[in-house]
Amino acid sequence: MIKPYDDTYFMKRALQEAEAAYKNGEMPIGAVIVINNQIIARSHNLTETLNDVTAHAEMQAITAAANYLGGKYLIDCTLYVTIEPCQMCAGALYWSQISRIVYGARDEQRGCINLSTKLHPKTKMFGGVMAEDASQLLKRFFIEKRNLN
Amino acid sequence: MIKPYDDTYFMKRALQEAEAAYKNGEMPIGAVIVINNQIIARSHNLTETLNDVTAHAEMQAITAAANYLGGKYLIDCTLYVTIEPCQMCAGALYWSQISRIVYGARDEQRGCINLSTKLHPKTKMFGGVMAEDASQLLKRFFIEKRNLN
Repeated sequence: MIKPYDDTYFMKRALQEAEAAYKNGEMPIGAVIVINNQIIARSHNLTETLNDVTAHAEMQAITAAANYLGGKYLIDCTLYVTIEPCQMCAGALYWSQISRIVYGARDEQRGCINLSTKLHPKTKMFGGVMAEDASQLLKRFFIEKRNLN
Repeated sequence: MIKPYDDTYFMKRALQEAEAAYKNGEMPIGAVIVINNQIIARSHNLTETLNDVTAHAEMQAITAAANYLGGKYLIDCTLYVTIEPCQMCAGALYWSQISRIVYGARDEQRGCINLSTKLHPKTKMFGGVMAEDASQLLKRFFIEKRNLN
């Protein structure tokens, strides 16, 4: 059976957001939030544009999804994010009680896994979906940034 | 020598913010951010009003202070917050590279200390300033909430 709306499908949408960030000189990380196979929030990192360390893709997606749903808890929602969430974003996801988190590439240094950030007991997280695309885009960003400086 | 601008002075301002939250039916937590004895951001919890789990007092104070400073790093700034920051807020403070965090009462269950959230190496944190006032206000909020339900 063909399943058009699988994790790869939605991660591709998150990667499109990451590419939009890349084009704007932002660290290329993108996210979408999905409920019942419908995207209800899409966002990318805006920390440089907004001059705001809290403007990670996930934070904006959480705010936008809650706004769409008219309630602050993201029950039955899945967050797709191209890079493993940091402590701040995982902490926000804890409060949101989101059902699923799917990330692309790991962030060994600043990601929530190695830093042991606590997720909500209702939340399941797994990663590795299109990880190579996500990390290649990030590497491209850092190489370009180094060459500019 | 009289020191009008000490930690207690600024924590009182944070407590005024917490009281404003209380009056609006929000969990009463308040924060101010200070640089050179000047308050550059004041905020209180707005999670109910904004329907947004990310709208903690600290998150808004970080955004407002960065906006005031015109840069996203809060070097030489002190955050005063009435209750110990959670994982999300401590994670955001990590990114901000803030110099000092002063909290009032501990949050044993959901605070960043017991959950071992990583702070930036440039950040010093300590607590217990007007802790009794901060925790009494929170207790009053929960008792009232229980009685209403």
